[in-house]
Amino acid sequence: MVPQNQIGKSAMMLALFGEGADQMALMKTLEDDGFSVTLGKIGTMESHKIVAAVETAAKKNGIISSELYREEHALYHATMEALLGVGRGVASFGTQLRTVGLRFAIVRGRPYSNPEEGEWLAVAFYGTIGAPVKGFEHEALGLGVNHI
Amino acid sequence: MVPQNQIGKSAMMLALFGEGADQMALMKTLEDDGFSVTLGKIGTMESHKIVAAVETAAKKNGIISSELYREEHALYHATMEALLGVGRGVASFGTQLRTVGLRFAIVRGRPYSNPEEGEWLAVAFYGTIGAPVKGFEHEALGLGVNHI
Amino acid sequence: MVPQNQIGKSAMMLALFGEGADQMALMKTLEDDGFSVTLGKIGTMESHKIVAAVETAAKKNGIISSELYREEHALYHATMEALLGVGRGVASFGTQLRTVGLRFAIVRGRPYSNPEEGEWLAVAFYGTIGAPVKGFEHEALGLGVNHI
Amino acid sequence: MVPQNQIGKSAMMLALFGEGADQMALMKTLEDDGFSVTLGKIGTMESHKIVAAVETAAKKNGIISSELYREEHALYHATMEALLGVGRGVASFGTQLRTVGLRFAIVRGRPYSNPEEGEWLAVAFYGTIGAPVKGFEHEALGLGVNHI
Amino acid sequence: MVPQNQIGKSAMMLALFGEGADQMALMKTLEDDGFSVTLGKIGTMESHKIVAAVETAAKKNGIISSELYREEHALYHATMEALLGVGRGVASFGTQLRTVGLRFAIVRGRPYSNPEEGEWLAVAFYGTIGAPVKGFEHEALGLGVNHI
Amino acid sequence: MVPQNQIGKSAMMLALFGEGADQMALMKTLEDDGFSVTLGKIGTMESHKIVAAVETAAKKNGIISSELYREEHALYHATMEALLGVGRGVASFGTQLRTVGLRFAIVRGRPYSNPEEGEWLAVAFYGTIGAPVKGFEHEALGLGVNHI
Repeated sequence: MVPQNQIGKSAMMLALFGEGADQMALMKTLEDDGFSVTLGKIGTMESHKIVAAVETAAKKNGIISSELYREEHALYHATMEALLGVGRGVASFGTQLRTVGLRFAIVRGRPYSNPEEGEWLAVAFYGTIGAPVKGFEHEALGLGVNHI
Repeated sequence: MVPQNQIGKSAMMLALFGEGADQMALMKTLEDDGFSVTLGKIGTMESHKIVAAVETAAKKNGIISSELYREEHALYHATMEALLGVGRGVASFGTQLRTVGLRFAIVRGRPYSNPEEGEWLAVAFYGTIGAPVKGFEHEALGLGVNHI
Repeated sequence: MVPQNQIGKSAMMLALFGEGADQMALMKTLEDDGFSVTLGKIGTMESHKIVAAVETAAKKNGIISSELYREEHALYHATMEALLGVGRGVASFGTQLRTVGLRFAIVRGRPYSNPEEGEWLAVAFYGTIGAPVKGFEHEALGLGVNHI
Repeated sequence: MVPQNQIGKSAMMLALFGEGADQMALMKTLEDDGFSVTLGKIGTMESHKIVAAVETAAKKNGIISSELYREEHALYHATMEALLGVGRGVASFGTQLRTVGLRFAIVRGRPYSNPEEGEWLAVAFYGTIGAPVKGFEHEALGLGVNHI
Repeated sequence: MVPQNQIGKSAMMLALFGEGADQMALMKTLEDDGFSVTLGKIGTMESHKIVAAVETAAKKNGIISSELYREEHALYHATMEALLGVGRGVASFGTQLRTVGLRFAIVRGRPYSNPEEGEWLAVAFYGTIGAPVKGFEHEALGLGVNHI
Repeated sequence: MVPQNQIGKSAMMLALFGEGADQMALMKTLEDDGFSVTLGKIGTMESHKIVAAVETAAKKNGIISSELYREEHALYHATMEALLGVGRGVASFGTQLRTVGLRFAIVRGRPYSNPEEGEWLAVAFYGTIGAPVKGFEHEALGLGVNHI
């Protein structure tokens, strides 16, 4: 069972694992515990494409409703917070001549024992940031958590 | 063996795991592969105490030299970048009525296959950020990577 | 009737009006339309006192529940966003030798015609920011809006 | 009469009112009291277009001189500060996949009783910020005040 | 003669030179050309003390009037902009466990050939920033320019 | 001889001087003392072009190796820090309708008396920032210092 209050850890782990048995096992555990999960990846110099990739993945996989701004708003802020971790205080990349290659994981569910705390959302990124030259890059990651 | 170029992932995993068998196994693997590792924890509203806790742990465990500003400079910037992930763009907490409880991991070594790329340093935080009220908090994390 | 989608405008108007007939009339209209409203004021150099003043007013007047972190989290982010408007990108004051004197208004309710959009929250500040010298100040304001 | 020291409140009110009798009445009062006022609107994802729209409106209506950099400099900083309120710490929108629709008001005059305090300038924005999807947006506003 | 439009360069040079013949010669040239100049120094971990030191020096030496908020406002923003250069995007130091030792220069006058561009102000800092350990520091500087 | 610990001052001076005898004399002194130096200039509204101009100049003149990410990483962060001084907290220009014309200097060498402190790098910018209108601009500068 995923420990309560740890959708952030779970999302980060999924992004760190990448494809494979560990990722599949954790996804299954999360889904068995009632969490919704989706994964994706994006490589770009433009931060708005990252936001769009996360939204598209979340809507296509039913993590958020396409009809409700409320849910888009919760996801948007979680995504921007996670991007601030990747950019370490800045959420734009190409304007600074940096390119990113990121895996992401989105987890939605009830992390608190008190049922009235309702649903929360975690967005995690893991990948590389660097110059637009192969291998000239280091790792970067970020996590955003929001109520939904 | 720890895959090359992944001291950031390794540091983040160590912080996410917390005390236990998984953490010990990963530490051992890292040390066998020639990386230096140290762990710590800190709970505070004052970000300068977090910086001090990381520096103290790094010096005490020989991750960086106490004598060389160069090494302190590398660690300082990696720490500040990791804190920007925790604060999602802001590296101060108490002035915003937030308190944090964080575990941290520091990994030093050679993540690139080209030996001339030399040593790098990763600092990772994982824990909670929230109001100064028990349970009124959610997860936060951050990673900083720097050459040393 | 308060036009839909305008809890932000309403909160800002309440803070701009200050005590008097206009403020009372708008409060009454909002309450008749099903919105919860509370008002307050704070003068300080320390931003965490502003956050605390808003939270205390909101809890005391039943705008948010004291028991639910979810609600505190929504209010906290709306407050911080409003403070970024007051400080124009910075949410700390005393560390920069500035003092603020602010009135604030908090409005909670359903601003969207689609009932599934649920409840939202607006926090507005209006007042002065300046040197700690009487009269050496100009106006400042900010608004934060969040789903709750 | 407009109370002294409140060109910021006046500019914000004009932007909040939008077209109509209230706006016209306040504009007339301000002009009778010796203030210069202009209004405009702009919808875009690109913040430099907002800056340009405000400058164009200000120059065309004689709020600032097209010949003096000094006046453009004062207006520019007031505009950027107001945009930081709209973006709550960030003054770019499209790079974050956000679009804004804003009304703005610019007021120039002498808000202080001491005539040597000279002329000041207030720029206020009010409107919406959101995803590039109709209705997926909430209110946002900002105010900048500068000496000229 | 100081080239027009270069009060920023002049202020930065004065701060870089430090006490000595070069500094005295440049000061004399500036004063002969009708500029007002003052110098100072400050070592601290608290940014509000830097702001206060600059203001005190400026008022004591008649660079700005103690009676006019307008002038304090112009100086304040020039000072904060110069501090952002020192802190490279952050204007607080002690909260990040950094200490600074800075020389500063303030220059006021008419840098533009068009007399209607009026008076402008430049604030420059030069010194060190680092850990609170002797020698664990590197150089930092910043410049702010504003109309007055 | 260049005083120890002052590669930042040296780089800033080179950028302030511009072409001429003073610049050539300082460059010669620095090279005699074992420092590597290169100069350049760039006018643009796009910050990524500034980053690219600095990198190209540094690689072409052998200040950093084109083969080592480690060196590119050190230069990149020094450049971004210097740009934060130019933009006073923001490292993008065109998105804010500003254009810059900058001279830059890069100095690499051993500024500390302890040889184990190794090599450091300083990047300095000096020039103008302003509206895209001739003469509507004021001076701006910045310095970044990093270990390499």
